Amino acid sequence: MTNEKPSPIRPTDAEAIALARRILRMARFGALATLDENGLPQATRVALATEYDAAPLLLISELAAHTRALAANPACALLVGEPGKGDPLAHPRLSLKAEARKVDATRNASVRLRYLARQPKAALYIDFADFAFYRLEPVSALLNGGFGKAYELGREELLVPVPSGFEKAERIARDMLSDEAIQQLIPDRVRHSHDTFRIGGIDPEGVDLVAGDRVERVPFANPVRIATDLPKALAALQTQADRT
Amino acid sequence: MTNEKPSPIRPTDAEAIALARRILRMARFGALATLDENGLPQATRVALATEYDAAPLLLISELAAHTRALAANPACALLVGEPGKGDPLAHPRLSLKAEARKVDATRNASVRLRYLARQPKAALYIDFADFAFYRLEPVSALLNGGFGKAYELGREELLVPVPSGFEKAERIARDMLSDEAIQQLIPDRVRHSHDTFRIGGIDPEGVDLVAGDRVERVPFANPVRIATDLPKALAALQTQADRT
Repeated sequence: MTNEKPSPIRPTDAEAIALARRILRMARFGALATLDENGLPQATRVALATEYDAAPLLLISELAAHTRALAANPACALLVGEPGKGDPLAHPRLSLKAEARKVDATRNASVRLRYLARQPKAALYIDFADFAFYRLEPVSALLNGGFGKAYELGREELLVPVPSGFEKAERIARDMLSDEAIQQLIPDRVRHSHDTFRIGGIDPEGVDLVAGDRVERVPFANPVRIATDLPKALAALQTQADRT
Repeated sequence: MTNEKPSPIRPTDAEAIALARRILRMARFGALATLDENGLPQATRVALATEYDAAPLLLISELAAHTRALAANPACALLVGEPGKGDPLAHPRLSLKAEARKVDATRNASVRLRYLARQPKAALYIDFADFAFYRLEPVSALLNGGFGKAYELGREELLVPVPSGFEKAERIARDMLSDEAIQQLIPDRVRHSHDTFRIGGIDPEGVDLVAGDRVERVPFANPVRIATDLPKALAALQTQADRT
């Protein structure tokens, strides 16, 4: 009789997976839960970017409480997805459980480019000696899509397969995209806002467009499975926007 | 040589204490860190009100992961203070460490009034059998007022003394405040917004005004130390607003 309470967890479907990844990609910041020196929970603010595969990427100072905590125990959790109007609990959010891993210094240059594209203000402190990049290796997640709409996701459902050579293809694509071409990626529903969007990141599932604090997620019709298909996927997004 | 790193913690002053309490009083929601069944951190969204003394007040479902976690271990942490424009880390936030205590059922009626004033949409589920109130008993807090502006606060610095009889005085005051009188409490800087504010809560240090998702904190010139002084403190706020 231990299981007499109704479970609020629904079967995970493609829609839930897409929503979970969208929340992660859209997040500018999140709440990081770590264990303090007594093994008790602490909750701190972190700024976010994502890696190509959607794993969260943090740039944190070793002077911060969360960094000292992660050095002692890499187990952590991240809450992303900010409430909008009305009841704060009616808005979707993702509770990720993860292990934090310091990014191998040989990867710093590429990680840096991606992080700064998403968090341009971090240019002020990215070179400080006490700052380092951490990747949050997802273990599992709870997606709460609003009241009574909870889903459990595993690592494989959170992370996106990254085709070999994607990083190179992405850099070439990014360099080739003129400001004009970027404007053609903007969905019609926000085109009239006259915000000047730039690329926050390109990954196998789509593009993050950023204008100040505004983030738009523009998914490809199909995920890119072969790196050399990336230009085609970007072109298709532009054509799509042109037509509508 | 274990302390060779510079400490980012500044001496706690009255301004830091006021900012910490202000962040707590203004918060509509926060991120709650708890320990899961394996003792690992988890981070979930909670809606918030505060008690008269500024302790956070949660209304949570026993079906939720955080409630099961708190039943096993009441140690928790709460992050409040939402970023605005620009760098998410430049905005003040409060990382509270606390112990969650289920509210004594004999207090439910009064707690309910205060919670619903702050979170009116909770009327939809406040009567569900699986929901209960929890008070977060503060242990300590880290206030981050922006880069390099960190402060540590103790329980006594977070909680406000509540004069005896305050609850009764507050209810009488609330019942006596006409809609017109409430409008006179609105600070001049937001008066032109034409939002219709209502009382989100009155406590010994001031008033929370709420209009939809907008929250304004209006502090008394001096904290109320004797419950029967509350009407005078409210009248002074109105006079002050009238004059400016």
